[in-house]
Amino acid sequence: MTETIISSASKEVIIGFDKPFCIIGERINPTGRKLLAAEMAAGDFSRVEADTLAQVAAGATMLDVNAGIPLADEPKILADTIKLVQSLTDLPISIDSSIVAALESGLKVYQGKALVNSVTGEEERLEQVLPLIKKYGAAVVAISNDETGISEDPDVRFEVAKKIVEHAADYGIKACDVVVDPLVMPVGALNDAGVQIMKLIRRLRDELKVNTTCGASNFSFGLPNRHGLNAAFLSMAIREGLTSAIMNPLHEPELAAVKGADIVMGKDPNCKTWIKKFREPMPEGSSAAAGREGRRRRRAR
Amino acid sequence: MTETIISSASKEVIIGFDKPFCIIGERINPTGRKLLAAEMAAGDFSRVEADTLAQVAAGATMLDVNAGIPLADEPKILADTIKLVQSLTDLPISIDSSIVAALESGLKVYQGKALVNSVTGEEERLEQVLPLIKKYGAAVVAISNDETGISEDPDVRFEVAKKIVEHAADYGIKACDVVVDPLVMPVGALNDAGVQIMKLIRRLRDELKVNTTCGASNFSFGLPNRHGLNAAFLSMAIREGLTSAIMNPLHEPELAAVKGADIVMGKDPNCKTWIKKFREPMPEGSSAAAGREGRRRRRAR
Repeated sequence: MTETIISSASKEVIIGFDKPFCIIGERINPTGRKLLAAEMAAGDFSRVEADTLAQVAAGATMLDVNAGIPLADEPKILADTIKLVQSLTDLPISIDSSIVAALESGLKVYQGKALVNSVTGEEERLEQVLPLIKKYGAAVVAISNDETGISEDPDVRFEVAKKIVEHAADYGIKACDVVVDPLVMPVGALNDAGVQIMKLIRRLRDELKVNTTCGASNFSFGLPNRHGLNAAFLSMAIREGLTSAIMNPLHEPELAAVKGADIVMGKDPNCKTWIKKFREPMPEGSSAAAGREGRRRRRAR
Repeated sequence: MTETIISSASKEVIIGFDKPFCIIGERINPTGRKLLAAEMAAGDFSRVEADTLAQVAAGATMLDVNAGIPLADEPKILADTIKLVQSLTDLPISIDSSIVAALESGLKVYQGKALVNSVTGEEERLEQVLPLIKKYGAAVVAISNDETGISEDPDVRFEVAKKIVEHAADYGIKACDVVVDPLVMPVGALNDAGVQIMKLIRRLRDELKVNTTCGASNFSFGLPNRHGLNAAFLSMAIREGLTSAIMNPLHEPELAAVKGADIVMGKDPNCKTWIKKFREPMPEGSSAAAGREGRRRRRAR
C-alpha cells in the first residue's frame, strides 16, 4: 500500500489509502489576499500566526505555506514564514512556490521531511525541482500539466502524471513520494469535469498506485453554494481514491465531507474524531443535554 | 438499464442509474410528530398541506405519505391524505404503511402508478403485499429483513433482497418494479456500517441490478452534526449506485449532497438544477449582484 510520509521535527503524517484523509490547510497564502500580502511584505506575520492556529484548531493534518507576493523577496519571506509556522505547530508543512529559489530557501530552513508544492510535467521544471526533492529528501506534489498546458483530456493528464513519476524515479525519488494533483476543472465551464476527474482519480489509484491531492474548490468555480458542491465532490472523490486535498478546514461543509468520508470508509474508529470535532462545547454552567439541544436547534433548517 | 417508473395522473418519474437522484420527501409522516398525529386523527390536514408544498418547493422528486397513528382508522386517513396530496401536487407518491389494509385503501384512491412502501422478506408479508402490487400495477420498496430480523451481515441482507425479487417475479412483478432498501445501520453503534453498506449497495447495483432506496439519516443516529454526516454518506452511496432515498429535502446539507452528486456524475446538464435551486432569489428592487453577494456573505464562515 502506497504511503507518503511527511514530517515536522516531532510529528509524522502518513498520506495513504488506508489512512484518514489528509487535510492540507490552504490559508497561509497571500494570493488574492491583498492585506495579507502587504503585511507579509512588510514583515508583519500576525495574520499568518492567526491562520496557523485557526487551521490547527479546525483539524488540519498539514499546512500549506505560500509567500508568493509580486516584487517581494519571496525566498526570504517564505523561509521566515516557515520558521514562524514551525515554531507555532508541529504539523508538517507543504512548501508552496512557483519559484525554485524560494522552494530551496524553504527547504533549507524546514525541520523534517516536507511536501514540496509543486513540480509539473514541463521538462525545465522537472530538471529544476526534482534534484531539490532528492537533495532534501522531500516528497513532491506533481501537477499533471506540461509544456502543452492543461489538457481537458483526462487520459493525457494521466500520462503526464505517469511521466513525472518516471522522471522522479530517474532521480531516485520513489513513487510513494510523488503525490499527484490531477487538476480539478470547474464543472460550470466543463460539463463532464466531474465524470472525468472521478475516473482519473480511480486510475491514479489503481494503475499508478499513487497518492493524490487537489484544490477541490476549483470544481465549483462560478457556481452558487460552492461549499455544498465542494462537499459532495470531496466525499465522492475520496470514495474513488483521493487521499488528500488542499482546502480550508474552517469551511464546515467541506470539513464534514472529508471527516464524514473517513467514517463511511471505516477510518474513524468509534467516530472519535467526528464526535470530538462536532460535539457542542459545553457552555459554562449549562447541562450537557442543554448544550446538545442548542446545537441541534441551530443546525435544523 | 433498470428503470423504475412511478407516476401520478399527469407526471412520470423514473428512478434509474442514469437519472438524477430521486428524492422521496419523508415529511408527511406522523411517526414521532405528536402534533401532526393528533391533527390528522382529528381530520385537520393543514400541516400535511404545508409539508406537501414545502417539500415540492424544496425539490422533492416524489413524496412519501404515511398515516400511521395508533388507534386511528389508518386506512381511511391514509386514503384521505393521498387524495389531498394528489390535489396539491403532481409529484408521484410512495404509499407508506405497515398495515396491508391501509396500503390497499391507499392504492384504491391513488391516481397513477404508486411506489408502495414496503414489503419485507417475511413470507406472510410477501404473500399479503405482492398480490396487491400486481393487482394495482404498482412498484414496491423491498426491505432486506425477514423472519429472523435484520441481519448485521450485508451478505445475508443481499440474499433477502434477492429472495424478494424472486418472489415478486413469481407474482409477475418485474425486478425493475422492486426498489431495494438495504437497511442503513447507525455507524455510531456498528463501526463498519459504512464499509458494509457501500459494498451492499454496489452488489445490489451490479449483481441484482435493482434500484435502491434508504433512510439515510439512520446512518448518523446518535452522533452530532447529523446533517453533515448524512450528506457525506449520501454522496458516497450515490457513487456506489444508490438511486433514491427517503429524506427531508428541506435539510440543505443533504439536499446539496444529492444535487451535488448529480453534478459530479454528469446528471445535471449545465448545472441548471443546481443554479436554479441555490441561486439567491432576488429581493425586490435589489440588483442581481447585490443578491448574489448577500448569499455569499451568509455562507462564508
